Amino acid sequence: MPPSAELEARLLGEIMRIPAIDVHSHVPPEAPYARTLRDLLGYHYFTELAHSAGLDKRLIADETPDEQMLPALVDAMQALDNTVQYSWMIELSRELFGFPHARLTRDNWPALAESVRLRGRRPGREREILKASSIEKVFLTNSFDDNLAAVDKGIFVPCLRADTLVFGFTDRDVRARLAKVAGMEVGKAADLRNALANVLRHFEANGAASAAIALPPHFETSPVAEADLNAAIGKAAADKPLTAAEAATLHNGILFALTALCQQFELPMQVMSGALRDAYRHGIPKGTDLPQSGDTLRPLLPLFNGFPSLTFCVSVLSDSQGQELASYGWIVRNVVVSGHWWYHTIPAYIERDLTARVQSVPKTKLIGYYSDMYKLEFGLPKFNMYRRVLARVLARDLVQSGRGTEADAVQVAHLLLRDNARRIFTV
Amino acid sequence: MPPSAELEARLLGEIMRIPAIDVHSHVPPEAPYARTLRDLLGYHYFTELAHSAGLDKRLIADETPDEQMLPALVDAMQALDNTVQYSWMIELSRELFGFPHARLTRDNWPALAESVRLRGRRPGREREILKASSIEKVFLTNSFDDNLAAVDKGIFVPCLRADTLVFGFTDRDVRARLAKVAGMEVGKAADLRNALANVLRHFEANGAASAAIALPPHFETSPVAEADLNAAIGKAAADKPLTAAEAATLHNGILFALTALCQQFELPMQVMSGALRDAYRHGIPKGTDLPQSGDTLRPLLPLFNGFPSLTFCVSVLSDSQGQELASYGWIVRNVVVSGHWWYHTIPAYIERDLTARVQSVPKTKLIGYYSDMYKLEFGLPKFNMYRRVLARVLARDLVQSGRGTEADAVQVAHLLLRDNARRIFTV
Amino acid sequence: MPPSAELEARLLGEIMRIPAIDVHSHVPPEAPYARTLRDLLGYHYFTELAHSAGLDKRLIADETPDEQMLPALVDAMQALDNTVQYSWMIELSRELFGFPHARLTRDNWPALAESVRLRGRRPGREREILKASSIEKVFLTNSFDDNLAAVDKGIFVPCLRADTLVFGFTDRDVRARLAKVAGMEVGKAADLRNALANVLRHFEANGAASAAIALPPHFETSPVAEADLNAAIGKAAADKPLTAAEAATLHNGILFALTALCQQFELPMQVMSGALRDAYRHGIPKGTDLPQSGDTLRPLLPLFNGFPSLTFCVSVLSDSQGQELASYGWIVRNVVVSGHWWYHTIPAYIERDLTARVQSVPKTKLIGYYSDMYKLEFGLPKFNMYRRVLARVLARDLVQSGRGTEADAVQVAHLLLRDNARRIFTV
Repeated sequence: MPPSAELEARLLGEIMRIPAIDVHSHVPPEAPYARTLRDLLGYHYFTELAHSAGLDKRLIADETPDEQMLPALVDAMQALDNTVQYSWMIELSRELFGFPHARLTRDNWPALAESVRLRGRRPGREREILKASSIEKVFLTNSFDDNLAAVDKGIFVPCLRADTLVFGFTDRDVRARLAKVAGMEVGKAADLRNALANVLRHFEANGAASAAIALPPHFETSPVAEADLNAAIGKAAADKPLTAAEAATLHNGILFALTALCQQFELPMQVMSGALRDAYRHGIPKGTDLPQSGDTLRPLLPLFNGFPSLTFCVSVLSDSQGQELASYGWIVRNVVVSGHWWYHTIPAYIERDLTARVQSVPKTKLIGYYSDMYKLEFGLPKFNMYRRVLARVLARDLVQSGRGTEADAVQVAHLLLRDNARRIFTV
Repeated sequence: MPPSAELEARLLGEIMRIPAIDVHSHVPPEAPYARTLRDLLGYHYFTELAHSAGLDKRLIADETPDEQMLPALVDAMQALDNTVQYSWMIELSRELFGFPHARLTRDNWPALAESVRLRGRRPGREREILKASSIEKVFLTNSFDDNLAAVDKGIFVPCLRADTLVFGFTDRDVRARLAKVAGMEVGKAADLRNALANVLRHFEANGAASAAIALPPHFETSPVAEADLNAAIGKAAADKPLTAAEAATLHNGILFALTALCQQFELPMQVMSGALRDAYRHGIPKGTDLPQSGDTLRPLLPLFNGFPSLTFCVSVLSDSQGQELASYGWIVRNVVVSGHWWYHTIPAYIERDLTARVQSVPKTKLIGYYSDMYKLEFGLPKFNMYRRVLARVLARDLVQSGRGTEADAVQVAHLLLRDNARRIFTV
Repeated sequence: MPPSAELEARLLGEIMRIPAIDVHSHVPPEAPYARTLRDLLGYHYFTELAHSAGLDKRLIADETPDEQMLPALVDAMQALDNTVQYSWMIELSRELFGFPHARLTRDNWPALAESVRLRGRRPGREREILKASSIEKVFLTNSFDDNLAAVDKGIFVPCLRADTLVFGFTDRDVRARLAKVAGMEVGKAADLRNALANVLRHFEANGAASAAIALPPHFETSPVAEADLNAAIGKAAADKPLTAAEAATLHNGILFALTALCQQFELPMQVMSGALRDAYRHGIPKGTDLPQSGDTLRPLLPLFNGFPSLTFCVSVLSDSQGQELASYGWIVRNVVVSGHWWYHTIPAYIERDLTARVQSVPKTKLIGYYSDMYKLEFGLPKFNMYRRVLARVLARDLVQSGRGTEADAVQVAHLLLRDNARRIFTV
């Protein structure tokens, strides 16, 4: 090995041992790991890519039985065996299920399915997976009325997902659920603040560490006048249709009220910016959203400016915003640059953004990576993908460039994978 | 050589032998190769760069004789001998004309001119060039009323260029040409569909494999109401000026009518998105258009969503859209990611986009490259430029990363250069 | 060393010796170098990053004494010791002040402070610094009413900063200063042109080589009608509030009048595009502006098109515009691609943009780098950062790719660092 490859390998060895904090996932705490192969192959990355490559969507529909769905999907996945997403499946199968092959085929999937079934029955399976993945804690995505009491707080961290509150208030069912969990009806702005405070108190009491929201491209944040918010809430509560301006008032009113409470409760807010929802009309479930090039963080400045003592951990979906986000982390004190999200969680984009972040943003203001996973098994290949890029970037850019020692590089890796998250979210 | 350079060289050797399908060119089938040096140096890449670097545009005007134009242009090109575009000229001169020098100079151009003149008289010259270039077939850019009967179908594939139909209908001359070739006047929407169907039947009968259109930045695709389209066609046919809204209705009405017919005739549509036409007022011919940063594919979604069983092969002009386009290929079943277009066909951009595409898009949904050339000679250096980047990306990213074998990499190269195009366009 | 590293090192050796022309800085000619450590650590890159990383802004306020400010800032800078910006401070301390450490600490900063104090008293210190930096001349940023007589023309080049003229005319104090320096009041468009001509004559007489202006994202340049400009000037001169449309007329009227004069006086205009001013409300001085992703140069085309014989040296702030800017340099004869500005002056972005520029833009149309510095000491590490990237890019991309010899690469470096600036600005 040339010296640079040796350095990178040494750094990777250290980085693989850092117990990561995974600050964003969709893991369901009541069923956190796979019981069947379908629990793994059903991950939207595979179904959406297979559908995009030509698979009939009926073959991956919920009602299609495993014995029909699995071989069809495995066959279709041959068209995407070049991708990083495919390699996640192979790596986790090898590392967590003893799968010995480099490709998943019509012949070898049944053995993998059996291994998933057997290992899924092992006691303490979630901790076994996390240990093998060098992940210590995993943040959840909780609805405002989730029952958090049963969550295993030793490994999971509740996190309030705010999208439904902010964008779903015109839905009668959402309002009913909010009334139930908050113990009160919301008819005006003051009620809203009280109801949201009740929700946050409940989350705080159950160890929640963060709120999270995804905002569409070009969403204009703006504080709203109390009277306007009262009017919008009143119309929504009466099931009257809102104009676009009233809807914007309602969304911003709820967003700012919630953010004010997050500041008060010291609950950092994770903002994912830029997903264009339901853009592809013929996609499969979870495979209809797209990034939008040309998006900007500028319309979020009123939010960041309005709550200077609340930390916002920000991710973007479009790679055309990589430098913009880094500049926000560089200048804006309450903005932390977080992860490599969704369509962006591909080594080519990670390496590019990570290099610039390590070169230009204070090391204390970077959250390296989060998995966004739906089952714990995916933490291993996704974090390993990130760890490999991190080792390469730190070797080349920090150590070989002469800006730091190998020990400095390891310290930066600890901050990005673990220490910054622990400090920012108090976990 | 270190092992990685050896691997890359082996892959390049294989890749150089793949007979490519070139899905987009402007080669005139009646004069496909150079008869004079001016046919080569007159390529807009050289004239626009030389003009930009200071050459008086009168010296490269059509009426300026060769003996004045050629030495002036050769001199001016010294200012751009650092560029990849310049290297295309040197590589093709060496490989196709036995030119032994690394730079074109006032002293050595006459010998090259003589070689072009002599080799241009060789019988079967077009096939000789294609063989030396490892290119099997070349798509043409045909106007809706081109005579396709004389096209040599053994090496050329007709392709309907739709820009004039979609954007030129207010031009009386265009309407007259359409009436002549379609055998009917167009006075309302139903006529339009019939006339376009006649055009497509003619193209289908002559082996056309594709339609193609270039759309300006932020062009909003949208289906239009029959009555509105009737009104817009009526005004245009009567030579009355259209409002901006009526023009948009007309453009979209024709675009959607043509797209519906492409779906019916199973003719994939190549969409080139993002050229800002006539932006630079003082440019030379073909040197006045520019990319626009901040552009997005979002306004094309109604088109992609509206014709789910038609394949769209999409290219973008701005590098800020590289990831957006890859995400479309990843999610949207009828979008294929195609080539590296125009201002984008530079190794730095190709390498970046290709890496991300190979990492994240099914290998069956990528068309690697097309030449966009005006003379067959340019296929060699442009495809070779692409082949070198492809070898590097596959070596590093597929094989060395452990995601595939050397044989896998060669198979991906076959798909990108040849097999996907043959399957998608049925050629 | 492998052959590629040897080549890069040889090129870097040559490149380090090229006496650069620095075409944009904020160096105050009356106090061009540091007298105290605070003069260096007070550079906004450090204060804004330290503040962003958590430092209380009161500790870096002007009124805070050195003995409190310096240790606090040095401590806070530990959070950013991973950054390139931090490395500028270490490199200049080592090269210009004999500082032997890799990190600045609470223990070692007093010795550095003492060295700054001592070396700041050396006679001819500015030339000593420039010699150590291989920089020959440094452009200044001069207000329209600066006294230019005292400027040391042997090393400094005056440059008219136009922002205040273009955007500050509604400010009564600005108008008074303009009246004083131009020797006339401005009440209508004709006065404006005469007053600006007087300013330019004054600058020309004092060896000015350039005008410069920063334009906000999406600023729409447009020529204005004389009557409209008269009306806008009249209102502004009478201290009446302007509508948004009138303000746009005023800004464009002054911009176009000034640009016409620059064309007449043959004074190239440096345009910095894309800084969103005062975006972050809680920032420290000079730490409140941000780039805006999604920006485009398209709205500047009326300016570039309107003055075809004036050279515009253009920089962008958002990395999403890197390719757009390169394409402008490629096509638009009077656009020169200049430097890597501000949030962009980070090796990851420089390498990416420089690679594409060297591959696609005539070598005569590139200004490699400018320092943007406030004290001469920063020219050394900033230019060295650029020189290292330049050596790497030229080694890999020009020489190893076979497109040029080592001598060609050195010649390109001379053009980018020195010769193009000398030719374009006649210095």
